[in-house]
Amino acid sequence: MVLKAGNLKPIPNTVDTLKSGSPEMVVNGIVTTMFATTAVIEQAVKLGANFIIAHEPTFFNHVDNKEMVPNNPVVKQKAELLARHNIAVWRCHDYIHSIKPDVVGYGFLKKTNWLQYYKPTDKYTITLPDATLQQMVQHLKQTLNIPHLRVVGDLNQQCRRVTLIPGAAGGLMQMTAAVADQPDVLVVGEVSEWETAEYFRDGNLQGRKMALIVLGHSYSEEPGMEYFVEWLQPKLPGIKITHIASGEPFKWV
Amino acid sequence: MVLKAGNLKPIPNTVDTLKSGSPEMVVNGIVTTMFATTAVIEQAVKLGANFIIAHEPTFFNHVDNKEMVPNNPVVKQKAELLARHNIAVWRCHDYIHSIKPDVVGYGFLKKTNWLQYYKPTDKYTITLPDATLQQMVQHLKQTLNIPHLRVVGDLNQQCRRVTLIPGAAGGLMQMTAAVADQPDVLVVGEVSEWETAEYFRDGNLQGRKMALIVLGHSYSEEPGMEYFVEWLQPKLPGIKITHIASGEPFKWV
Repeated sequence: MVLKAGNLKPIPNTVDTLKSGSPEMVVNGIVTTMFATTAVIEQAVKLGANFIIAHEPTFFNHVDNKEMVPNNPVVKQKAELLARHNIAVWRCHDYIHSIKPDVVGYGFLKKTNWLQYYKPTDKYTITLPDATLQQMVQHLKQTLNIPHLRVVGDLNQQCRRVTLIPGAAGGLMQMTAAVADQPDVLVVGEVSEWETAEYFRDGNLQGRKMALIVLGHSYSEEPGMEYFVEWLQPKLPGIKITHIASGEPFKWV
Repeated sequence: MVLKAGNLKPIPNTVDTLKSGSPEMVVNGIVTTMFATTAVIEQAVKLGANFIIAHEPTFFNHVDNKEMVPNNPVVKQKAELLARHNIAVWRCHDYIHSIKPDVVGYGFLKKTNWLQYYKPTDKYTITLPDATLQQMVQHLKQTLNIPHLRVVGDLNQQCRRVTLIPGAAGGLMQMTAAVADQPDVLVVGEVSEWETAEYFRDGNLQGRKMALIVLGHSYSEEPGMEYFVEWLQPKLPGIKITHIASGEPFKWV
């Protein structure tokens, strides 16, 4: 259905498969979220929704291999919870990023009030009114409800040209974008500290004005899963679709 | 020399190669560090040391491929800085972890005053006196000079059994240790948020007492590079060896 509505071709070897439940199940309610955590599953049960669309894995690795660590008690208990309540979980990762425009990036721009600066030809590099890195951080924390985040760079640096790569795209993609697009600031979900973060540290030590904002993986893509409700609901008028934010796993101390 | 002193066999395809300089150079001073950042290189120059032993990459990817992103200005300028000052950088990652006991883990235990609880047969799972997660976090922040860190779990949880995996060992190794060793708390340098952190989140939501402390990659292994001076200096009495902490790349805002 998502493929047809999004005018997408099937992606070979996609990770977007059912992680629990079966294709024959009758859907009586849908929840979208970043992670189908135990808390999200319990809230879905309360809502009477038996179909969770999660952007990221349910069983803690990219292909949701439940036997990656054999006899894993957390995996076992989670699978039992899903089975007991007859909840289907479908990952929607590769397809949602393939929709034009990418639903995750679009949802991010909508939530941050940056859609007005978005030109579809520019991918997700946008030009904003002048602001310092400090001001941009405050804006992102406020609009995305992020209590804490990490940056590399000078908080007084001017930021106009912004490249957005929500999620954990990896060092190759993040550094390629930094070199190719030459943004004042690269905004990402998650980095390998020893790759992208060190690249930005050295760039700054060389006197370059190049900043990195690391939002947290969950915060960076949750607006996409929230916007996905708006995208999907008109295509399924008979089924209630609700977004539940799974939030971040960490306490910052 | 490190191989001989550590009684190690050559590791095929090791990443522990010279990143600048040549084997013929005469070493007139050594610096150990986590990352040979621009700041560390400049400090080495001031110390008159022309050989930097860094635990992690110099050019922002695991194999230090300078062409991973072609025409990368930060990479180019950093290579020029090293060439201008005739500084050799050698990565010591695979070998230092192969020394028995692993110098990185040993240095960590020394710095945290936990060597007294260490039994070589136990790898790096140790049993400590009773403490809450909050108290353990405070101890680690204080002994390792960490201003901020992230945890998953209940700060009031009791922590006695601790498994240490400094660095960014990856989800497979981290979750395998969590299942196999059943520690009260797993202490790591860096995680993929969407793998190990979510695993610990779900474990806690299931009512398990299992905590994760994420120290930061650099903080978690720097004590190993500091202790490496103590290990190496007696073997090279004629050369001054200095540790320079490269610190973390982030500002927390």
